[in-house]
Amino acid sequence: MRTTTARAHPNIALVKYWGKRDEERILPAAGSLSMTLDAFETTTTVVPDGDRSADVLELNGRAADAEQTERIARFLDHVRALAGSAQRVIVRSHNSVPTGAGLASSASGFAALATAAATAFDLDLDNPALSRLARLGSGSACRSVVPGMAVWHAGDDESSFAEPVRAPDMRMVIVTVDRGRKPVSSRTAMRLTAATSPFYPAWVSSTEQSLSEMVEACQTGDFTRIGEITESHALRMHALIQSTTPPIRFLRPASVAIFDTVAELRSNGLEAYATADAGPNVAVLVRPDDAAALAGELDDLGQVRIVGPGPGAQLLPEGLEVPAATAHKGTAQGGTAQEGITQEGPA
Amino acid sequence: MRTTTARAHPNIALVKYWGKRDEERILPAAGSLSMTLDAFETTTTVVPDGDRSADVLELNGRAADAEQTERIARFLDHVRALAGSAQRVIVRSHNSVPTGAGLASSASGFAALATAAATAFDLDLDNPALSRLARLGSGSACRSVVPGMAVWHAGDDESSFAEPVRAPDMRMVIVTVDRGRKPVSSRTAMRLTAATSPFYPAWVSSTEQSLSEMVEACQTGDFTRIGEITESHALRMHALIQSTTPPIRFLRPASVAIFDTVAELRSNGLEAYATADAGPNVAVLVRPDDAAALAGELDDLGQVRIVGPGPGAQLLPEGLEVPAATAHKGTAQGGTAQEGITQEGPA
Repeated sequence: MRTTTARAHPNIALVKYWGKRDEERILPAAGSLSMTLDAFETTTTVVPDGDRSADVLELNGRAADAEQTERIARFLDHVRALAGSAQRVIVRSHNSVPTGAGLASSASGFAALATAAATAFDLDLDNPALSRLARLGSGSACRSVVPGMAVWHAGDDESSFAEPVRAPDMRMVIVTVDRGRKPVSSRTAMRLTAATSPFYPAWVSSTEQSLSEMVEACQTGDFTRIGEITESHALRMHALIQSTTPPIRFLRPASVAIFDTVAELRSNGLEAYATADAGPNVAVLVRPDDAAALAGELDDLGQVRIVGPGPGAQLLPEGLEVPAATAHKGTAQGGTAQEGITQEGPA
Repeated sequence: MRTTTARAHPNIALVKYWGKRDEERILPAAGSLSMTLDAFETTTTVVPDGDRSADVLELNGRAADAEQTERIARFLDHVRALAGSAQRVIVRSHNSVPTGAGLASSASGFAALATAAATAFDLDLDNPALSRLARLGSGSACRSVVPGMAVWHAGDDESSFAEPVRAPDMRMVIVTVDRGRKPVSSRTAMRLTAATSPFYPAWVSSTEQSLSEMVEACQTGDFTRIGEITESHALRMHALIQSTTPPIRFLRPASVAIFDTVAELRSNGLEAYATADAGPNVAVLVRPDDAAALAGELDDLGQVRIVGPGPGAQLLPEGLEVPAATAHKGTAQGGTAQEGITQEGPA
């Protein structure tokens, strides 16, 4: 075993993941498709550490709390099972997601952790196996293992992983309107939706339909169709969530204003399509050449950032490590730790 | 035959009507329940007028356009069929709905017209028959025939009418946030939803369930349960509409802000529940004693008006008539005519 470090990025889904058919193995009720971003990376170092009796987690230079640590330890149990090892480790993770950017870091976090831990435990995993492993930490993490556009097959345990899909080059303008905490976590909301929404079964079957249309639109490079499915599917996910009993709503007035503005821009010839994960912030899909103009138009409505397709999870060269907490205690970047690896990811 | 005048009021649904199983006979896919209001009445006079070859419609002192007149003539054909008559009539209708109050007047309009026309044509209709007749003009009009709380049974042609249901005394604070026209009429949106939303079948079955729970909550006087079902069902209807392909959205940022504010007020002890018909304006259900305080809290978010349960459709004493257009041409109240009798009603 050896100390290893990996890096991964969050993703934003164009066909959303909402609902599990197996909570324990994190098997989704339907497939999904996302863009792994070129920003907001998470870097994670796994250090095998002698004869410790428990795993340790440090997030952004601070010791994590018991709940966060427990979630990581449960994930590492899967790695240990694969490796036939009982070794406990220190996990040091650093998120570059700005506080409240509205990009939950569980996808990048578990993609980076899976990649680093697999190597630390001397597992020789191919990309599908690495994606499957990341999935056990957080469903959408399996997509962040893959560069650019990734499709996550619902599948059974073996076949439920993400792989690349050919697609035209695109950008997203992320508009951050809210820096607060969600009223309810995605994980809890997802469970409540499946348990109480009368629309849930139809959501599952129609999502499979949307995914198959989206994969075809990506492969044929049909940006308009990609955009239409993206916006329609995002609004349908929020509709589904709103139909939970009692209702759950993630979109704020400012979020709705962005959807309205995007529709208006579109009718004026700037072709763009809005989507939102389980939170109030909105990501707007656009052709590369229109990204700057779109960002300018949306600038009044929140903090904007242009992102594009990014790399999959990658090992970093030996010698690059996330520093230990003790060395950083005084300079820990406040705020991001609580948004860290244990926060539920986007849909 | 004789000249008759009737008056009726709009209603706001607590269990929404969205979707027809028979477009021609206006049979709803599921039952619904509403409060007939004590404000915004429509007054309508029907004048049998010699040997005219076509019906004439005057709205708020102005001649109506061809489309509006045609809709009234088709409705009057039902009345003539019941009466075995070929008599054409003049219909003079006056709406007191302020421009842009967000209360479509087709429910009050057809409830008043059905009541006046039935008597003008010497039909002797009991309340269920009158409600059935009004339904043929606009679905939700069958509920405005009934005073206070009304349940509209889905039923077949004979059994699809509204009747009173016992309920606790309640108020609504109507918050008007938008005075503009809808992007798409309710009638069209309803048809598109049924044709394209994957959630539609589940909406229909779950609405029947909500209705049965609501009737029980009304009869037992359980305000909290009435309110919970009201808000949850309204959000579910907007979720359904949003799941149409392509998506249709009636709630504006200001509407969402009212739902948010109501939820916050509720958590602070002011028990109130929001609902919205197929438009951006919001009605908030509240106990009578809390209505003034609620109106004060919502005053910043739009134009507020407190309403309560009102009378059913009623004949006015002979001698009271809506004046002819010619007598009023100079003083016609602008703006309301286009919002008149032919506008699709609330859900």
